[in-house]
Amino acid sequence: MQFQISSELIDKIKFLVEEKNNDELLLHLEDVHHADIAEILTELSLEEATYLVKLLDSQKTAEALMELEEGVRERILETLSAKEIAGELEEMDTDDAADIISELPPDRQQNVIAEIQDEEHADHIVELLRYDEDSAGGLMAKELVKVNENWSVTGCMSEMRAQAENVTRVHSIYVVDDKNRLKGRLSLKDLLTAPSHANIRDIYIPNVDYVNVHTEGEEVARLMQKYDLEAIPVVDEMGRLVGRVTIDDIVDFIKEEAEKDYQMAAGISEDVEADDNIFKQTRARLPWLLIGMFGGLGAASIIAGFETIMITFPKLLIFVPLIQATAGNVGVQSSAIVVQGLANGSLRDNIIGRLLKECSLALVNGISIAIIVFIISTYFFGTTYTESVSIGIALISVIILAALIGTFIPIILNKNNIDPAVATGPFITTSNDVFGILTYFLIAKAILGF
Amino acid sequence: MQFQISSELIDKIKFLVEEKNNDELLLHLEDVHHADIAEILTELSLEEATYLVKLLDSQKTAEALMELEEGVRERILETLSAKEIAGELEEMDTDDAADIISELPPDRQQNVIAEIQDEEHADHIVELLRYDEDSAGGLMAKELVKVNENWSVTGCMSEMRAQAENVTRVHSIYVVDDKNRLKGRLSLKDLLTAPSHANIRDIYIPNVDYVNVHTEGEEVARLMQKYDLEAIPVVDEMGRLVGRVTIDDIVDFIKEEAEKDYQMAAGISEDVEADDNIFKQTRARLPWLLIGMFGGLGAASIIAGFETIMITFPKLLIFVPLIQATAGNVGVQSSAIVVQGLANGSLRDNIIGRLLKECSLALVNGISIAIIVFIISTYFFGTTYTESVSIGIALISVIILAALIGTFIPIILNKNNIDPAVATGPFITTSNDVFGILTYFLIAKAILGF
Repeated sequence: MQFQISSELIDKIKFLVEEKNNDELLLHLEDVHHADIAEILTELSLEEATYLVKLLDSQKTAEALMELEEGVRERILETLSAKEIAGELEEMDTDDAADIISELPPDRQQNVIAEIQDEEHADHIVELLRYDEDSAGGLMAKELVKVNENWSVTGCMSEMRAQAENVTRVHSIYVVDDKNRLKGRLSLKDLLTAPSHANIRDIYIPNVDYVNVHTEGEEVARLMQKYDLEAIPVVDEMGRLVGRVTIDDIVDFIKEEAEKDYQMAAGISEDVEADDNIFKQTRARLPWLLIGMFGGLGAASIIAGFETIMITFPKLLIFVPLIQATAGNVGVQSSAIVVQGLANGSLRDNIIGRLLKECSLALVNGISIAIIVFIISTYFFGTTYTESVSIGIALISVIILAALIGTFIPIILNKNNIDPAVATGPFITTSNDVFGILTYFLIAKAILGF
Repeated sequence: MQFQISSELIDKIKFLVEEKNNDELLLHLEDVHHADIAEILTELSLEEATYLVKLLDSQKTAEALMELEEGVRERILETLSAKEIAGELEEMDTDDAADIISELPPDRQQNVIAEIQDEEHADHIVELLRYDEDSAGGLMAKELVKVNENWSVTGCMSEMRAQAENVTRVHSIYVVDDKNRLKGRLSLKDLLTAPSHANIRDIYIPNVDYVNVHTEGEEVARLMQKYDLEAIPVVDEMGRLVGRVTIDDIVDFIKEEAEKDYQMAAGISEDVEADDNIFKQTRARLPWLLIGMFGGLGAASIIAGFETIMITFPKLLIFVPLIQATAGNVGVQSSAIVVQGLANGSLRDNIIGRLLKECSLALVNGISIAIIVFIISTYFFGTTYTESVSIGIALISVIILAALIGTFIPIILNKNNIDPAVATGPFITTSNDVFGILTYFLIAKAILGF
């Protein structure tokens, strides 16, 4: 790419802002893409950034604001008046404007909406605020191009041209009836080659993919990916065309979902960024650490319960970390595979087959590890033959058990409509710690008979 | 959505295949989208699926094959002749055809390419095979619409129409010079409103985003997302326009990358699916389990090394699982935040600040957990006051240490151009197990003096 934000450029802009040299600033930033303006704003101090936002054309700053990270955007918006924010929102697509408004404190939302001059735009934004942000309704924009099936080809051209003014990318022309119900779509080619006295009804394509306002974002993403769509129309409960979701919003959505799943697997329960404050980070992390802590205390009770072991077979205790680590790792592997299989649909209803497969896999891995540990414990740690056998058999059993728990828990959560991604990470690790150590001692007790 | 694949439909198709009732089959599948054909193929036996692929129009099956999971596709392609595969490839875009070919066994690749009738198409596919699959060259397709800057507006219209025949979605019209070097892009609107004697040179937009064939896929995805592009042109080392990457390929790429990162964090080193065979799954999983195993054996040596502890303070041993679990969980949380911060660019160069923040966070979490454990160990496990103090202080230290390791390792890997995602999962957990237990015993020894 050609454009690179250099520290010279940032210094230059900081200097010009300090000098209040507006002409030079406008000249420098005239041809800069709004996404790059956003990066520049991030590098400036809050005062400098606000100065620039107020100076630049709101068409440019509106789009730049959308590209900013939420934290930075929030701080800049705090310094703007309700009227100034409304000015930015007027330049945004309805979906972006609604996202911005929903980030504002509740008391400001109303003030800002009241300042929006374009009543239809305000109306649309308010409508979008009603929908859950992860549904098709929450993802869609009101901007689209639609024609009535009863229009003539000639009449529709000028109408379309007017509509397209407000739409960044047209993608598709949708066809509706008199009650605004979605009937199909129109190919630009057919429109251009149709006789001018023809009606839209005669030339439109009745076959069109669409989603409902309540369709979940995940499902919208799946459909758009499956059918390689760049936009999909959204209808309400009465089949009326109320908006459309475009692929750029879906790309953002997919990335956010992936980040959430990844964090969930790592035991972080809210969407946090590296630069979020300590309070937010603690709230996202501490609960999972507490789950792990109670697991650890559970394991402590188990060990304390087998107190004779400490006296008769103290060597067994030194392998507790090994048992625990292995149980945790196996469980996380199994659950990750299942969670992904459930998410991308590659895992079908064959649960028994899945479990059998995990068991065989666990057996292969378990035997390999048990043999190595058997040899090392006998020769390096001086365990007796029976002790080594107990450790080996316990390892195999623990690995199979961990694989089963790792497979079962996400499947059960999914059946109960709970996001199975919750199951990976600390949840699985903790249950496997406890069950793993219990299994270890029970098997040792059975074999060694203490 | 309207179309749903029911088990009745599948049964019907199975029946018609058995009856070899081709007319009925074609009638039933005529209007079905290729992505749905792919789903149907997945539900059929290999013989039935192959029968359908041979029966249906290769324009439809080519696209359906692209939508199939790799494993299913491989099995179907194995049953087809080189000529039949070549027939499918002729119908595909060059990027898809190249992907399919690269999945074939090396000896078959040549045979299949030799059977492709359209020489230019074959040429393009061979060119694409040269590029690394995760680079812009590997992601791009050769299909695009381009015009020469020296052409007249009139001459260019018919030329463009011919090119557009082979391109599914036009997105952008690129402008090149006589040496095929990318000069800019053309807006359809400007083209339509320009006087017919004008040259392209007079009306094109010289400002165009592009990437180089060697640009990494991650960077292409980042740029397309940042600038909301639906296609980006790709140039070679001499600035010549050689292809373009479209957003649907980027969507797939982003999903695959997210899946890989997720698996990596779970200790699965190759891209495996739930239905891959046991050998492949073992190869992807066992190495990480072995890392965990050696960590566990390391922890065993540490405990064995502090053997007096077993005799003098046996109660300390029962808290080893707690120490280990906490160290692991904290490490994974810290590393996940850093890995994501590195990936999405929200983590800037401020490493000292990052470490200080992780330390404060660890201190908050550590003190909270230490207090709870202090109370529970004293009242429920009957540890002495000094023992409880040792456990509490050890917990706080272990949490801080684990957070530092979790933060540092991904940053260091990233500096050395190793994917930091490797660091999350078993790698971090294992190091934290070992260091955590060592810290625990060292602190206990210092305070209790055994």
